Amino acid sequence: MREIDLKNFKIRTDLITESVCNFKKEEVEEGIWVSMVSLDEEKAETCFKKPGTYTTIEFTDITDMDNFIRVKNVLKSHLKSFIKGEKTLLIGLGNQKSTPDILGPKTIDEIVVTSYLEAFGPLEEGFSSTAIFKPGVTGETGLETSQVLKSIVESFKPKQVIVIDALASKSLERVCKTIQITDTGIEPGSGVGNKRTEISSNTLGVPTLAIGIPTVVDAVSVVSDTITYLMKQYSFQKTFLKTKKSRLVPSSQMNYLKEEVEITREDKEKVLGMLGALEEEEVKELFTEVLTPIGYNLMVTPKEIDFTVDKLAHLLATSLNEILHPKLEGKKE
Amino acid sequence: MREIDLKNFKIRTDLITESVCNFKKEEVEEGIWVSMVSLDEEKAETCFKKPGTYTTIEFTDITDMDNFIRVKNVLKSHLKSFIKGEKTLLIGLGNQKSTPDILGPKTIDEIVVTSYLEAFGPLEEGFSSTAIFKPGVTGETGLETSQVLKSIVESFKPKQVIVIDALASKSLERVCKTIQITDTGIEPGSGVGNKRTEISSNTLGVPTLAIGIPTVVDAVSVVSDTITYLMKQYSFQKTFLKTKKSRLVPSSQMNYLKEEVEITREDKEKVLGMLGALEEEEVKELFTEVLTPIGYNLMVTPKEIDFTVDKLAHLLATSLNEILHPKLEGKKE
Amino acid sequence: MREIDLKNFKIRTDLITESVCNFKKEEVEEGIWVSMVSLDEEKAETCFKKPGTYTTIEFTDITDMDNFIRVKNVLKSHLKSFIKGEKTLLIGLGNQKSTPDILGPKTIDEIVVTSYLEAFGPLEEGFSSTAIFKPGVTGETGLETSQVLKSIVESFKPKQVIVIDALASKSLERVCKTIQITDTGIEPGSGVGNKRTEISSNTLGVPTLAIGIPTVVDAVSVVSDTITYLMKQYSFQKTFLKTKKSRLVPSSQMNYLKEEVEITREDKEKVLGMLGALEEEEVKELFTEVLTPIGYNLMVTPKEIDFTVDKLAHLLATSLNEILHPKLEGKKE
Amino acid sequence: MREIDLKNFKIRTDLITESVCNFKKEEVEEGIWVSMVSLDEEKAETCFKKPGTYTTIEFTDITDMDNFIRVKNVLKSHLKSFIKGEKTLLIGLGNQKSTPDILGPKTIDEIVVTSYLEAFGPLEEGFSSTAIFKPGVTGETGLETSQVLKSIVESFKPKQVIVIDALASKSLERVCKTIQITDTGIEPGSGVGNKRTEISSNTLGVPTLAIGIPTVVDAVSVVSDTITYLMKQYSFQKTFLKTKKSRLVPSSQMNYLKEEVEITREDKEKVLGMLGALEEEEVKELFTEVLTPIGYNLMVTPKEIDFTVDKLAHLLATSLNEILHPKLEGKKE
Repeated sequence: MREIDLKNFKIRTDLITESVCNFKKEEVEEGIWVSMVSLDEEKAETCFKKPGTYTTIEFTDITDMDNFIRVKNVLKSHLKSFIKGEKTLLIGLGNQKSTPDILGPKTIDEIVVTSYLEAFGPLEEGFSSTAIFKPGVTGETGLETSQVLKSIVESFKPKQVIVIDALASKSLERVCKTIQITDTGIEPGSGVGNKRTEISSNTLGVPTLAIGIPTVVDAVSVVSDTITYLMKQYSFQKTFLKTKKSRLVPSSQMNYLKEEVEITREDKEKVLGMLGALEEEEVKELFTEVLTPIGYNLMVTPKEIDFTVDKLAHLLATSLNEILHPKLEGKKE
Repeated sequence: MREIDLKNFKIRTDLITESVCNFKKEEVEEGIWVSMVSLDEEKAETCFKKPGTYTTIEFTDITDMDNFIRVKNVLKSHLKSFIKGEKTLLIGLGNQKSTPDILGPKTIDEIVVTSYLEAFGPLEEGFSSTAIFKPGVTGETGLETSQVLKSIVESFKPKQVIVIDALASKSLERVCKTIQITDTGIEPGSGVGNKRTEISSNTLGVPTLAIGIPTVVDAVSVVSDTITYLMKQYSFQKTFLKTKKSRLVPSSQMNYLKEEVEITREDKEKVLGMLGALEEEEVKELFTEVLTPIGYNLMVTPKEIDFTVDKLAHLLATSLNEILHPKLEGKKE
Repeated sequence: MREIDLKNFKIRTDLITESVCNFKKEEVEEGIWVSMVSLDEEKAETCFKKPGTYTTIEFTDITDMDNFIRVKNVLKSHLKSFIKGEKTLLIGLGNQKSTPDILGPKTIDEIVVTSYLEAFGPLEEGFSSTAIFKPGVTGETGLETSQVLKSIVESFKPKQVIVIDALASKSLERVCKTIQITDTGIEPGSGVGNKRTEISSNTLGVPTLAIGIPTVVDAVSVVSDTITYLMKQYSFQKTFLKTKKSRLVPSSQMNYLKEEVEITREDKEKVLGMLGALEEEEVKELFTEVLTPIGYNLMVTPKEIDFTVDKLAHLLATSLNEILHPKLEGKKE
Repeated sequence: MREIDLKNFKIRTDLITESVCNFKKEEVEEGIWVSMVSLDEEKAETCFKKPGTYTTIEFTDITDMDNFIRVKNVLKSHLKSFIKGEKTLLIGLGNQKSTPDILGPKTIDEIVVTSYLEAFGPLEEGFSSTAIFKPGVTGETGLETSQVLKSIVESFKPKQVIVIDALASKSLERVCKTIQITDTGIEPGSGVGNKRTEISSNTLGVPTLAIGIPTVVDAVSVVSDTITYLMKQYSFQKTFLKTKKSRLVPSSQMNYLKEEVEITREDKEKVLGMLGALEEEEVKELFTEVLTPIGYNLMVTPKEIDFTVDKLAHLLATSLNEILHPKLEGKKE
């Protein structure tokens, strides 16, 4: 894999856990995993990522109210170390007319805004000063998002900025099931040409936290993931049949991803021919070449995206509200 | 009337034609009236208005497509003298969650935006560079609107700014039936405390045109207008019965506003008692004192406001689009 | 007053408390009044209303959370006697594109729907079978609402029907501050021509409860109410100045509606001239004749209607949900 | 392929062109293909489809206005033979809260409704009687859609019914790019349990036309399609390099789908190993078995679905409006 030029590799991902760096993630509660990494300049360069701190929370479900609360608690415990109860500007990036892109604006709409109340005296104990902003996307407004944000920050002078955005994943498994928190900022996909569109502590001049959740995945990743799953299932069933681990559950209904199995090069080439001889990144490159000229290298999103984005925005907003305004904690849900 | 202190008078109006200055309005087409006035410093002070140019277009109907087009043509002919085909920033003021206030944002949403295309080369002939911005209201965002706009203008550097806003009228007749265009800017009602919230050429540093349509009226004005109509109808019927102008249409069904009739002080006091002895502004002041302590000095809006605002936003947007981008002229509607 | 033909009187009201019948209302909690009346055939005819039971709840505020809960509790205690925990069809009348008319559909959207779960077995204890329906308005769908509802009821076979609708009031005071509950059904204003459009136990064939809240008022009522207030304030101030009840609060800031004062015919004629010689209903008739020929007898709604309707729909929906599904009681808010 | 039990095969499709029947499609204009088939009872059974007439229109683009009009004209020419200018009920199936499912309701919202005008006299020449209905989905309303529609049809008594719905495709290529018109009706996916939910001439008792556009595709089809494309590209490049057809365009940028190439069993097994030895349906079955136990056999939709559905609904609505109301033809767009 190391031979191919990763810097120019075309699959888009916004997730650090999908970079080439190795991470160890820890299951902090049943069905919730956290990985944290701090990249110095040198390490960052190896990963093709920006130096800084990255926290990734992965979960399997937030539709159940109990799970929702458990994920919210994990999220809050990690946000707390980044967020100070000071004058905060929260920014919801993304196109409000596009469902998979509406995560940022939807979250922002649920934030309890207080800064304008300071004109009437100090805020009530348990509340901090907050303002929100939804810049829209350049293709709708004609304004360059990073430029607009710079001006707003200069005029409002917040002590910290929190940017929320919908991301792209290169893995089917992580879509709508991963939250990434980083102090390195964000580079929204909507930038035009080669202008610098980074939104970060560097460009805004105040500490800037970026919170993102992937809501779309590219077709190439769906295909490449499935090929990988096919091999995992094949190897699992081979092992399973040999060891006869369980005689009760048919192997076809078992979640083979939960088991550690070895996939040999021989098996790969037997099952997948020439395709099996390629490394994962090469497989992606190949499918990119297959889908791109015929116009089918789409970004896709799950059919239920409207409901999922609602839930995720509510998760982010209630977590942020309770940290920024501790008085709200335990109010409802 | 001149005795009462008009500067402190509480009835809110954003319309120049409702100020104390006298205007002569001209019927430019059937059912469409235009008044134009240019106030120098001295004259402006007498009217308690800002110096500059004011154009007011009044109409009776835009739901009929023919009337819509006629009003649009009058509007365009007056906008043309203000708007140059240069880098334009259009700003839609108002709260997007409040129907009578959504006129600005709704208009802006229909504007054809082009400025981001300049990154790819000069715009097609017949199109000019446009960008849009919806600042929301301070109570929702926590940001001071005039501050935000100043920053955006400084960063985007437009050659001209067009601000669109829903206004308050102090007359039932003018609600949703008047367009005011002025180069003096605007002072949105959403300002907090006594901070300066003016949005104008002075504060933004570039020529700024304000376009407004009243969508709300206060209860006091509804009452005071009706009292005036009562006297007009009374006097009309007295005259009408005397002259027996028409024997076919019952007087009760005639539009008495269209006739010039004299209302005598004697008639007023006979019909309205002590109330009839007051001047119009004193009547308003009286009703303000009646309604305010019991909490009924409401701003109201017609029941059909959703449909009316849609139509009005479409009127403004198509007019602006055709002036900013002449290529669009005659495309549809 | 009794001389004028009330049956043909043009001011539209849907509220029983605004009919000619006398009601005594009782303040059940601070700021919450309830009146209940049961009209037999004979009494109903005198009031120009349908025979049946009418409960009216009036309140001053539900924006404060404490007040919201107090009004909700009063509402629930009265709904309980009407609603049985059986197969219920809830119907939200009104045009979803018109803010003052959206109360019914908005309420319905918050109802917890369960009937489709019965296909999988009996419902969980504490939940009853519910379904919802939003018929829209005839001018949008082309379908006659009462016909459509009859068909749906025949096919779904509910044990009871609850219809929710926005009403018209003929009093400024009651707009958005009155809930009317009646087992006599409803006759939506959107009916075309002289077809029967009643929605009631009679037409649907199952017990039908109508819940309505007035969200609009006609301009004539705004004017006529204000004239009445003017006289009340005048008489109050005369009495107040005589008795010198309070030397601290200026009379101009006191809520004169809270005091019982006598308004003499002499005062009325002195203050209002010929207008003061008329009875309240005659005043309304007069103003109707003044405003109608010039096209200003509008229905109006408060400027804040978007926010108010949201709150009211939430009030109705949470109350209904907690009665239909007792398991939900005390869950949140 | 014929050995596997197609009746029980799990991949869902609503498109006749994706059934096992063979179709010949014809390119009626550049980039627009039409296939028509009439299945008698016997033929229908072989295809596992209902007997009747199926018309399928495939296109590559409708975002360009010229292409939009060309597709609209082809669509109208085929709709015309089905639709008579009589009392028509148009039904928009689908969940209004789910973007990929909103096609039916969105189309319906743009239909010009006239039936309620008949109360005032015969319709204007060039307009026919139309009404619309949006039943929602059972999971939201609690009502069984097919039951509700039956009642509405019985009460409104239309001469014909037109049902519009978003479909599922089993091919990436056809998502949002295929319109299917059939007189066999529709069986919406939202049905609960094993109740009959068919909506058709049989169940409604009047001629019923179903118009559908696929807006979602399952992950298995995305994978299986890509595997097929891989083989096509491989074979194309082999042939291409041999014949040196073109020395100017690099083969990697050519649309290999446009060329007819032979894919040999040898090539398939060489490139894809055991996977290459399977027939297309077996590949789908295999990937279904891989993705289902781990919960990733999702239905997906393109990231841009909001914009695409808007365009498609507008295409259907303008076509239907112009056929039902010829007077509207050539009005705009």
